Amino acid sequence: MKILLATVTASVIATAALAADPVPADLRATALDIFKPLPSTYPAVSDNPITPEKIDLGKALFFDPRLSASGVFSCNSCHNLATGGDDNLETSIGHGWQKGPRNSPTALNAVFNEAQFWDGRAEDLKAQAKGPIQAGVEMANTPNQVVATLKSMPKYVEWFTAAFPGEADPVTFDNMAKAIEAFEATLITPAAFDAYLNGDEGAMTVEQKEGLALFIDKGCASCHSGINLGGNGYYPFGLIEKPGAEVLPENDKGRFAVTATADDSYVFRAAPLRNVTLTAPYFHSGKVWNLKQAVAIMGTSQLGEDLADADVDRIVAFLGTLEGRMPDVVYPVLPAETDDTPLPSGEIK
Amino acid sequence: MKILLATVTASVIATAALAADPVPADLRATALDIFKPLPSTYPAVSDNPITPEKIDLGKALFFDPRLSASGVFSCNSCHNLATGGDDNLETSIGHGWQKGPRNSPTALNAVFNEAQFWDGRAEDLKAQAKGPIQAGVEMANTPNQVVATLKSMPKYVEWFTAAFPGEADPVTFDNMAKAIEAFEATLITPAAFDAYLNGDEGAMTVEQKEGLALFIDKGCASCHSGINLGGNGYYPFGLIEKPGAEVLPENDKGRFAVTATADDSYVFRAAPLRNVTLTAPYFHSGKVWNLKQAVAIMGTSQLGEDLADADVDRIVAFLGTLEGRMPDVVYPVLPAETDDTPLPSGEIK
Repeated sequence: MKILLATVTASVIATAALAADPVPADLRATALDIFKPLPSTYPAVSDNPITPEKIDLGKALFFDPRLSASGVFSCNSCHNLATGGDDNLETSIGHGWQKGPRNSPTALNAVFNEAQFWDGRAEDLKAQAKGPIQAGVEMANTPNQVVATLKSMPKYVEWFTAAFPGEADPVTFDNMAKAIEAFEATLITPAAFDAYLNGDEGAMTVEQKEGLALFIDKGCASCHSGINLGGNGYYPFGLIEKPGAEVLPENDKGRFAVTATADDSYVFRAAPLRNVTLTAPYFHSGKVWNLKQAVAIMGTSQLGEDLADADVDRIVAFLGTLEGRMPDVVYPVLPAETDDTPLPSGEIK
Repeated sequence: MKILLATVTASVIATAALAADPVPADLRATALDIFKPLPSTYPAVSDNPITPEKIDLGKALFFDPRLSASGVFSCNSCHNLATGGDDNLETSIGHGWQKGPRNSPTALNAVFNEAQFWDGRAEDLKAQAKGPIQAGVEMANTPNQVVATLKSMPKYVEWFTAAFPGEADPVTFDNMAKAIEAFEATLITPAAFDAYLNGDEGAMTVEQKEGLALFIDKGCASCHSGINLGGNGYYPFGLIEKPGAEVLPENDKGRFAVTATADDSYVFRAAPLRNVTLTAPYFHSGKVWNLKQAVAIMGTSQLGEDLADADVDRIVAFLGTLEGRMPDVVYPVLPAETDDTPLPSGEIK
């Protein structure tokens, strides 16, 4: 009797868990109105023609720890291409073991974001690249020191000259940033969702399609839309209900720091969701390590809805289709220092 | 008149600088008695058959910062394959921004060293690999935490199972070290000196051959011999004349800490010299940034001779022939964390 009852209960639960609306016949057409597949080639970026020489130089710079004052951190330290383009830390550890203020966003597909950083304060990747190199809690370097470092190595001078032909003084902080942007523009990860949008109905399972339908119907796609399913607009975190301070720390007012407009208090760029299954922990605070929990928090804070557990599972299943094929990156061989290379400084400034 | 005098002076200096003994006809035969070219295949290592699966796993582990307690440091942080297999720091910066006690040696060709570390306290690379992961000033992790981390990721379990077939519990700290050793055994950098030893007389310039002849005649090759031109014996630093405390700090007694034998005070493993042009700063203390200066210090401290500047130049030219072709390394894509993965700890223990 006890066994029978258990079986019945389990069966009821299973039925409840399975109860989803059928996948709408026009789901793909609806999705194509809201999202866009990744292109088959890397995109053009403003004021920075992408060439193979620039990509190669940018890759070297991206992996070069000598861009940091200490010689310890490269761009790849916090945007690690081996681990989803981020560092899997709540917030990054930088110069002098200081902790950064916000979770490190992935460098993968970042070229498709409308602006960079959680508060969108950099208009593109070449503007972004200059930030962490100079931030005291990150790489703690100065443009002068970076340029002196790069100019001290003949191979770098050669590479900059090839990447920026015809320029009288090609080794500049701006050109460094442009080369890094060119490399980052190649960091594109086509995923099952792209195959689906491109017409392959078999690229997603029924559960994943149910999740996509929910993602649209529940309203997630209002903010997480476009090519990166996010990264293209600013919204208050806690639109309907503010999450607790453990997730939304009071002292970080987000975009308010950029615009000084009261309306922008606790406003952040909607996180781009490609490869989100690889980029825990979540939110600008990096306080949530579990994707299901993050989706549930979004439900209450942004949609005002306690999403059913089974629906959260479906949405997470859909998010799994955004996990893409990682770019093939041959690890660079960097130029050796010379007697003119400034010595690294491990001091806390 | 002034111009003429300057020309004469320059000419005298040039003549002086060129005055070297002619390159002996049997130089290559003599060199082959002392040194050995790198093999064309990676070497066998004891108790650890090398397979492609083990190499691939080892590469992933070598680049995985989650082997450190903080999630910040991988093997590659201090043995960076982009910069000569070391970190270009006096001594490495590790957990909690602590500085390590000795200069990080290159991982390149390290498989050919008779023992590992500056004091030879690890008999091979699988023993070595376990050290920094547990060292409080480096990666500050524990074997239990490492194994829990690796076991939490199904992909790692799959890779360990493939690399250690037939083992009931393949994900172990020992197997981790074996896989890293297998990967490191592939980090071999054939150089111009190997081509010369293999019979290509044109692989070295006359100046480089003069440097090689001096390297042998002056006595450098007494300690820096064999396949790695070092890494195969222990010698007092300051055999003839102790360098100052700025180069040889008093508190680091080298191999004495391993053997507790008075004779081993300030005894260190002769540094292997392959790629030495890429691995400044020099000596266990990392206090000397210039290779010419390092060679000159070796002259006075080990040979009791003030080497002529032109001879130092020749020896440095020879050392340049040890700069090899770097291995092609495709940057790995690492498994993503799961809910079971221990969280990184940025705390200083």
